[in-house]
Parts: sequence; C-alpha cells; structure tokens
Amino acid sequence: MVQWTPNTDTDLPSCPSSPPSPDALNKLLFPTNRELREKLFDLLKEPLFRRRTDISVRQHRELTTARIKRLHQEGVFRNTIALQKPEGSRRYDNVIAVLTLLDHSLEVKLGVSFGLFGATVHKLGSKQQRDFWIPRLENFEAFGCFALTELGHGSNVRGIETRATYLPETRQFEIHTPNETAQKYWIGGAADSATHSVVFAKLTIRGIDYGIHVFIVRLRRPDGTIEPGIRIADCGEKAGLNGVDNGRIWFTHVRIPREDMLSGLSQVAPDGTYSSSIPSANARFGVMLAALTGGRVGIASNAIGTAMLGLTIAIRYSFQRRAFAPSEGSLEVPLLFYTSQQRQLMIPLATSFVYGFCARDLSDDWYRAIESGSVSKRTHVVSAGYKALFTWFMQDALQAAREACGGQGYKSDNVIAPLKADRDVMLTFEGANTVMMLQVGKTLLAEFGSATRNSGRYDENSILSALNAIPRKSGSTKQLDSAFFRSTFLRLEKEQVVALGNQYSKALKKRGGSEFHAWNDCLEQAEKAARAHMCRVIHETFECHVKKAYEIDEHSADALGLCGQLWGANSIQQNADFLRLRCISINDATVIAGGVGDLCEKMTAIAKHLVEGIGIPQHLLAPIAVNYVKHNSRARL
Amino acid sequence: MVQWTPNTDTDLPSCPSSPPSPDALNKLLFPTNRELREKLFDLLKEPLFRRRTDISVRQHRELTTARIKRLHQEGVFRNTIALQKPEGSRRYDNVIAVLTLLDHSLEVKLGVSFGLFGATVHKLGSKQQRDFWIPRLENFEAFGCFALTELGHGSNVRGIETRATYLPETRQFEIHTPNETAQKYWIGGAADSATHSVVFAKLTIRGIDYGIHVFIVRLRRPDGTIEPGIRIADCGEKAGLNGVDNGRIWFTHVRIPREDMLSGLSQVAPDGTYSSSIPSANARFGVMLAALTGGRVGIASNAIGTAMLGLTIAIRYSFQRRAFAPSEGSLEVPLLFYTSQQRQLMIPLATSFVYGFCARDLSDDWYRAIESGSVSKRTHVVSAGYKALFTWFMQDALQAAREACGGQGYKSDNVIAPLKADRDVMLTFEGANTVMMLQVGKTLLAEFGSATRNSGRYDENSILSALNAIPRKSGSTKQLDSAFFRSTFLRLEKEQVVALGNQYSKALKKRGGSEFHAWNDCLEQAEKAARAHMCRVIHETFECHVKKAYEIDEHSADALGLCGQLWGANSIQQNADFLRLRCISINDATVIAGGVGDLCEKMTAIAKHLVEGIGIPQHLLAPIAVNYVKHNSRARL
Repeated sequence: MVQWTPNTDTDLPSCPSSPPSPDALNKLLFPTNRELREKLFDLLKEPLFRRRTDISVRQHRELTTARIKRLHQEGVFRNTIALQKPEGSRRYDNVIAVLTLLDHSLEVKLGVSFGLFGATVHKLGSKQQRDFWIPRLENFEAFGCFALTELGHGSNVRGIETRATYLPETRQFEIHTPNETAQKYWIGGAADSATHSVVFAKLTIRGIDYGIHVFIVRLRRPDGTIEPGIRIADCGEKAGLNGVDNGRIWFTHVRIPREDMLSGLSQVAPDGTYSSSIPSANARFGVMLAALTGGRVGIASNAIGTAMLGLTIAIRYSFQRRAFAPSEGSLEVPLLFYTSQQRQLMIPLATSFVYGFCARDLSDDWYRAIESGSVSKRTHVVSAGYKALFTWFMQDALQAAREACGGQGYKSDNVIAPLKADRDVMLTFEGANTVMMLQVGKTLLAEFGSATRNSGRYDENSILSALNAIPRKSGSTKQLDSAFFRSTFLRLEKEQVVALGNQYSKALKKRGGSEFHAWNDCLEQAEKAARAHMCRVIHETFECHVKKAYEIDEHSADALGLCGQLWGANSIQQNADFLRLRCISINDATVIAGGVGDLCEKMTAIAKHLVEGIGIPQHLLAPIAVNYVKHNSRARL
Repeated sequence: MVQWTPNTDTDLPSCPSSPPSPDALNKLLFPTNRELREKLFDLLKEPLFRRRTDISVRQHRELTTARIKRLHQEGVFRNTIALQKPEGSRRYDNVIAVLTLLDHSLEVKLGVSFGLFGATVHKLGSKQQRDFWIPRLENFEAFGCFALTELGHGSNVRGIETRATYLPETRQFEIHTPNETAQKYWIGGAADSATHSVVFAKLTIRGIDYGIHVFIVRLRRPDGTIEPGIRIADCGEKAGLNGVDNGRIWFTHVRIPREDMLSGLSQVAPDGTYSSSIPSANARFGVMLAALTGGRVGIASNAIGTAMLGLTIAIRYSFQRRAFAPSEGSLEVPLLFYTSQQRQLMIPLATSFVYGFCARDLSDDWYRAIESGSVSKRTHVVSAGYKALFTWFMQDALQAAREACGGQGYKSDNVIAPLKADRDVMLTFEGANTVMMLQVGKTLLAEFGSATRNSGRYDENSILSALNAIPRKSGSTKQLDSAFFRSTFLRLEKEQVVALGNQYSKALKKRGGSEFHAWNDCLEQAEKAARAHMCRVIHETFECHVKKAYEIDEHSADALGLCGQLWGANSIQQNADFLRLRCISINDATVIAGGVGDLCEKMTAIAKHLVEGIGIPQHLLAPIAVNYVKHNSRARL
C-alpha cells in the first residue's frame, strides 16, 4: 500500500492557518502507555495478524487462539491482569484498545477470561483463591469463562435457575441444571477452549435458599475431555464474533469441593453454616455482578475506538474519491466537497471525539473504584448509560461510514461492513442497551423521589444535584457556547426527570399501587430522562477535558471545542423535545439548524488533522483508506 | 419444529372483540398470483432451499446457481420475464417477493439477468434483438450481466469512461477500457457465471462523441473460457450477498459486430452514419437508464418484505420469551408486556404495512408504465424516494428486531442479523439512497421554480399541485384522523419546499451564479423537502388503500387505519421540524407524544393477527419464531 496523501483540493473548505497538530491530539486522546501501544501496533504487522475474512467459524476460532498465544509469548499480559492494580487495568485496557482495532473476537475472548472470570475471582474470592487463580489466568495455564446467563434468563439475572446444593455429609456442592431454560447460554469460551468457569447458581443449604452465589467449576481436563456430568453444546455461528466459541452448558448433579465456592464475602462452613460479610441478599447480589460494570466500562471505550476506525477509513476515502464536475470537462470534485457527505461523516467524527474523552474519564473513575474498592452510584449510572449510548452511536457511525463509501463500503476487505456485523453484539451483551437506559432512568426516578421528600432539593451527593441551581437561559445560541449548552441541557434534564416523576405517581395510582405495572407505563419517559441526564453529563465531562486541553495545546483544544459544538448542536437538532418542552425557542432552533452546516464545514477543513490525530496505523486500515485506484489496478491481479 | 401458539397471557393488551382476519389481511397484501405464491412456498420446503449459513463464498455461489436451476426446472420463469407484458412483470415480482424471503442472492442474481440485462435489451434493443435475447434469457441459455458502474464512477453514471469506437472499415465496434478508473466494477454475474453483458460505453464515430450507448458483449464461450481481450477479476467477499459473483471487467480493444449495439432507439449505419429517434443526448441517456427505475421499484417492494420477515420473527419470539415477574414467585411476563418492547416492534410493524401498500401501488404504476411505454415524472420521483426510504426503514426495522431478541437475535440461524448484513447493500446499489433523495429534492426545486414563474401556482400536472390548496388546520390531533395528518403533512411539505427554493436563490447569488455550488449549499434542505414530500405522498397513497379495504373487509381496514395512525404520529414525533416550522403546536406535540404509546398498545393487541396476515410460512422463519426452548433442548443434540 502506498502512502496516503489527502486531497488538497481547492474545492474543499480551506484549512485554517493554525490547524491542530495530529501528534498533540493523539497525546490528548491516548495519554498513557504510549510505548506499549506502539509496540503492539508493530507486533500487529506480523502475518498472523493480517485481517482475514471468508474464513470458517472453526478457522476463526483457531486463529484467535493462535493470536492470543503469540501475544502471550511477547509478554503482553505480564502483570496486566484486570483488577489487580489500577496500573495493570490501565495497561490492559490500552492493550485491548489496540487489539479491538484488529478483531473483536480477540478482545472478547481475552475479556471473558481476564475481565469476567478474573475480575469475579478477584472481587469475590478469598485471598487464597485469588493467589491461586490470578497467576494461572495470566499465564494461560487456565482459561476461564463466565457462566451467568441462561437460555431463559438474560437481562433478569436474578431469575437464573441453576442450583448449587450444599451436601454437609460429603462437604461438597452439587451443581445442577433443573430444566431447559436453566442451561447456561452464550458462555464465551465454553464450546471449545475454557478449562474452568465461574458458575452463578442459587445456593441451597438444608432446604434454605441463600440466593445466588458463585462457584468455580472445572469444565475440561488437561487432555481436553469434558468433566463427567457436564454436557456442552456449541451456540453455533453468529452474525460476527465468530472467533469466540460461545457454548451452552448443562450440569447434571456435578459435585465440587466446598473450597470451590468463591468465599471472599460469603462462606459455608463444613457443617453447612452460612455466613456473609454482607447480610443483605440484595447488596450481595450487586457485588457479585461487579465484573459486569467493569465490562461495560471497557465496552463503552472500545465502541468509540471502533467508530473511529470506521470513520477514519470513510473519511480518507472521501478525500480521494471524486464524483461529478462543476462543469463539463473539468475535474470531478472529491466526495467531501458535498455538504451531504460532510454532514454524514463530520457529525459522527465530532461525536467520536466527545465520547472518546468521556469514555476515558469513565475508565479513570473505574480505576479509582478498583483502588478504593467501592463503586459510586455515579460510576454505576454512567457506565450503564455510556455502554448503551456509545454502542448505539458506534453502529450509527459505522452505518454512516459504510454508506458514505457506497459499494466499496460493503466489500469485506474494506473493513467497515464486517466490522459493523461483528460489533453489533455489543448492543445487547453485558446488559441490553434498552435495559441499561432504563436502569439509568430508574435511578433518576429514585433520586427524584428522595428530592420530593426533601422539599424538592436534591441531596449534595445526588447525581441530580446540578438541577438544584439551573442557570437561567445563558450563553448565546448564535455562538453555541458552553454556557448555552449547559443551561439548555440542564433544562431538558429537569423537564424530563420531573415528567418521569409525575408520570410515575399517576401510574402508581392508576395501577392500584403495583410498582411493576406503574414502571412499565413510564418506560418511554424513563429513557427520555436517562438520555437527557447522560447528555448533560457528557457535556459537563467533555468541557472539563477541553479546558484541560487548553493548558496543553491551544489548537487541539480549539478543535475539540468545535467537536463539542457540533455534537451539542446536532443533539439539540435531533430531539424535538427541546422545542416541545420549551428548552429552546423556535428562533433558537432555526439558528441551530443553520449552525450545524457551518460547523460541518469547519470540521471538514481540519478533518485530515483529526483523522491523523486518531492515529490508527495504515496496516490496520483498509485499501480504500490508502489508494483505492492502485489497490484495484490490473497490475495487482 | 412445533406449531407456534402465541401467548394469550392476561399480561398482554387484550385482543379486541373483532380482530382483523389474517386471511383477509393476507389477500389485501398479496392480491395477485396467490396460487403461484403457494406453489413456490411449497417448493422452498425442499432440502436444497434450506437456509444455510457458515458456507464459503464459493459454496454460496454454487448453491445459488443450483437453486436457480431447480426453479427453472419447475417452470417458474416460463413467460414471466420482466418487461415483456405487465402480467409477466407482476408474476415475476411475485416470484421474487417469495424468493427474497429465502436469500437475497437468489433474487439479485435473477434480477441482474432478467431485470437489468433483459429490461435493457427490451427497452433499447431492436425487435430482432429482443426476439433473439428474451427467450434465451428465460431459458437460461444465456445469463446476462449489466456493465454500467466503473471503479471511479458510480452515482455519476454520465462520467463513465469505457469507450466504444466504430470502425467503418470492418463494421465493428471496439470496446476499450482506457484506464484503471474505467474498469467495470461490481458487475453481478461477471466473476463466474454470466455469458454476456450489456456494456455501457461512450460511442465515438470518426472522432465525434455521441454519448453513452449500450452494447452486447459476449464474456464467456460455451465452454466457460473468457473471450480474448477481456480480463475479469473477482470483486471478492462482501458483507453479504455472497451468492452473487460480482466482478470487474477490463476490455482491451475488444471488437464486436456492428449488429451488437442495441439499436432500438439509435443506429449506426455500416458507413458510420449515426441516427436516433431521440435527438437529445440527455433524453437518450434517461431512456437508457430505464432498467434502473424498474430495479428501484423492485427494491422498494422487497425491502418491505424483508422488514416484515425480521419483524415476524422478533414478534413471535417476544410472545414466547419471558423476563421479570410482577412479584416474587409469580410467573415472568412475556417480553411484549413491556411498553419498551411494544414501541420497539409495533412502530416498525405499522410502518411496514403502510409502506407495503405504497410499494404495491408503485409496482402497479410501473406495470402501467410498461404498458404505455412511458414513465411519468411522479413514478420516477416516487421510485427514487421509496427506494431510499424503504431500504433505510428496512435496516432500522431489522436492527430493532435484532435488538428486541437480545442475544438470540445475533445467532445466524435466527435469520435476523445475517439478513441485515445481506440486505445492507440495498442502501447504495441501483442509486445510493442519499443521491436518490437529492434527485427527489432537485425535482421539487424545479417544480417550485416553475410555480414561482407562474405566480406561485403549481401546474395541474406538477407533483406539487396539492400544495395549491392546503386545507387550514383540520381534523383533530386527539383523534389522529386522516384530515389532521393530511393538513399537517402538506404544511410541512410546503414549508420545506419553499425553504429550499429560497435557500437556493440566495445561494445562487452568493455563489456567483454557479448552479453546481449553489445546489451543494442546499443539500440538507433538499433532503428535508424530499422527505416531507414523500411523507405526504405515502399518507395519501395509503389512505386510498385503507378506503378500498373498507369495501372488502372492515376489520382489516380498521387494523390498517391503526397502522396509518401509528406511522403518522411517529413520523411527526421524530421530526423536530414540525414544531420548528409551526406545522403543529406544542400542545399538538404533547398530545401526539402521549398517543403513540396508546397506539402501540392497540397494535400489540392485534399483533398476532397482523403477523399471521403477513403469512410467511414457518419453514422460512427461524427457530426462535416457533419455540425457542424446544429448539434449544438437550434432546435435540
């Protein structure tokens, strides 16, 4: 592939005299582990890491395993395993952020063993259990999977039916699948490769139900044969992610030693006496799912990396590819000349920068949570909200990128379309997006309820405390400045949260006090409130990053400011509720509608610098991102 | 697979006392060729037509060819070839509407030879050429492809560079690819299988350029070897549609006899004298692309069939699958209990019915155009608009269906996710959707221009003539009646078209009279105008069908009326411009926001009947559409 020289056509918006420096931007986007990233990018030049399409499910699985071995050989995972220390997590996340650009399967297969199995053992295991398992996982002596979901129970994890019965006479637990809907389903690594699994099951001791607990069960012996009493089936081909061997597991009265219940928080004594440092079953259950929160943090972040990959390819192609000429006989203009193409690609490009910084902020929160051992309400809410919003955004961005490239966007070797199929799973795994948004909405409803009991004021620690003092309309619509966005977003948030609270009270009366039915009447409003809340949080978070950027590099900060404006203006434009709930005037809406086009033009003028700032090396891009004519030349046949 | 018995749970909205009859609905949806449809559905029970995933590109191509042979053996294509007669077209379209439910590749591979090659020969060929080719195509003695697009020229088909030079001395044309961007690209059937191609090339006679003309070129000899001077390469793997062997073609001074230019409209005499019944090169070019319009009509229609398939699967699953219980220990409720699930699936279900009838209406227009030999402006505009809107809708509906099924929606054997990847190509082939919408917008701008010159009145034949007499706000927002929608949609259309006209005038001044640059300044507004126009047309068209339905079956007509209301209310709710341009009041918007939920609940109450009315037989559905627990049972391993 030859070097890419983006078009310097006079038909394109002219570059400002002081464009952002790609290098400075890249440092802002990826401030840590830069050497490690470079080393990995280099490693991915090896033939083993060449992008492959048109391989069978079997071949894809083998390739994924071979790639993991190679990475391990290079010591990539040494002292990095998730949750050991914040530095380790940060290092691991940087590794994954690079690998995700190559293959989602690689990322997920590692994530299941390190992030889910590993994090669960770390969080819920005793010191002895941790010390035993963590090094074994990191050295690939054990490969773990995470058996939570069942055929009939996905979003409602509390509904799982797998049983763990303690047998005091033999000091064993008996793990059992009581019926078909209780079969463990979608268990990544189970079909072919995992040696062990953490298994979530309902613990019963002498007929008393203690709720869900976690057990380590060996699935395969060192020679690969499956343990007696365990039946495993393959989940089969998926629309993507076929390098991960998802499986289904049935347990038939499988006995495991008492020592294999994760016993950091709860213990069963040899005689069957149960004890726990967390007495409330509800609270215990929350802690048990902690690994999922970490998973969501990672997903949010990698969704943005993926979107940036697709957008980089499409934007680089749009600089090269020409269509239609201003007059007969003259040169055709590049696709990015067209305001439709600018809009299609610049809005998601701006959004990817805004969300990218927010995702990093969430990761930093998460590292702090690991350090302190406790996850704040804000982090829970934000991780659920970002997971949903960022993966939805990712798919929209990839779709825009794919359509912006026309037929070339549909070719497998041009990456975008298969990428989209591969990542689509992210919208429903580790918490279906709709459910995630409703979790955010439910928290907002609870906070609104507390405030109502507190004469309308939110507690200082409430995630809604900013609603206590909403500035009157401030800032300037024409300038699209930060103050304008802040007051507008806060007003929408307030309107939506209040509407949710009021709607719920009415529904509760109408439904004779059934919270279950009343909540069901409010789901749309709950999602609206959640979106409005997240929109304000994103704006707030990103603005902090823009301010910090001004201390480092002014031109980059200007560019980020532009991204924020375009994201903000587009968010308002796309949502009729800003007008309906009178958060903006019709006049504002008209100004904003006009402003979006101007901002897209300004973005186009620095698109080359932004894309170079993202800094994905050429060997991880696609032929159309380099020189689509040369790649298709007859000489290459 | 066992029979599907949809849930009759009391947790679901209760069915009205007079629900629509699935049979009556089905007859309204598919009024013609019903026996043929049944016969085909039966034929697709054969093992050869079992859905396949995880097959290689090579296997998928072979499978597609084998299936076509089998269909041919059954005489499915006898006297059906496109464009011969309206009855033939209608018959062919019904065949394709069934086949599209199985595999897009089958539909496209047939469509290229019959619809594109065949229609081009029919439209542009002499009687002799038609009589020669049509039976050969129908009997699969020849398999045609359609070499229009080039590597560097997709949307701008006028920009193609392939040359056809007439050589009077030998009475031959020389077809030649002058450079890399002129290689024919994406030519369906070219890589492996087609025997002949229609080739679009710039005709030159004695140094004079006569513009684009169409030639028949043999690609392969009966033994499969490629003709000398022709080089063919494979386009390679795509994100879907891999049963179609898309190829690239280079011609190196390939000579073909004079008789192989399609000569129905234009002729080159032996001495090189050029004549044409259509003197204007522009008009000639329009006629040459007629086959593409027919293609768009078919795509619009099949997009809706595809959406209905995905929605059927997701809705049937949502009746069975349960999650969360109202109280501890009680039975979990089906997914369709949740208002979020209702909204996610009922809005696209309603829309699919609205668009489905509109697509049929367009097909009927097209058959009339075939009969009369001329395509009206309305049909051109509507085919472009429907092609874009319906394929975009299809992808959104499939995405909603996929997410509504959670992880199961991502499994290949559950159809939805691979369907989505397979059909994504429809958004950019035969006219990229964005370009299609801008074509509609450009026509509206021209009509607005004529009206401006005509003191603001649109001509009786203008597609905008309805704007001459917009009723004052009429109907009732609360009732969401047809009069309300009509006046609201007309008002938006008027505002958007006028805004387009005004914006363009200003842009033209600003750009020193350059139409090319002025138009580029208006693309967003042009798309808005196009969408508003199509929205009104869709409403108008569908209302006619609802009225007709009342003459046939009242309960079905009621159900269709409900679909129309939900589609209409959702269209208003999703578009902030209704408020911004004062087509509705804030009060209206609030009423509509509340109304959508109620309509979704009403739709859910009859969802079973609507889905059965669509009538896709079980063997073309997916395991989760039947009984997801039994399908996953251990007994089936």
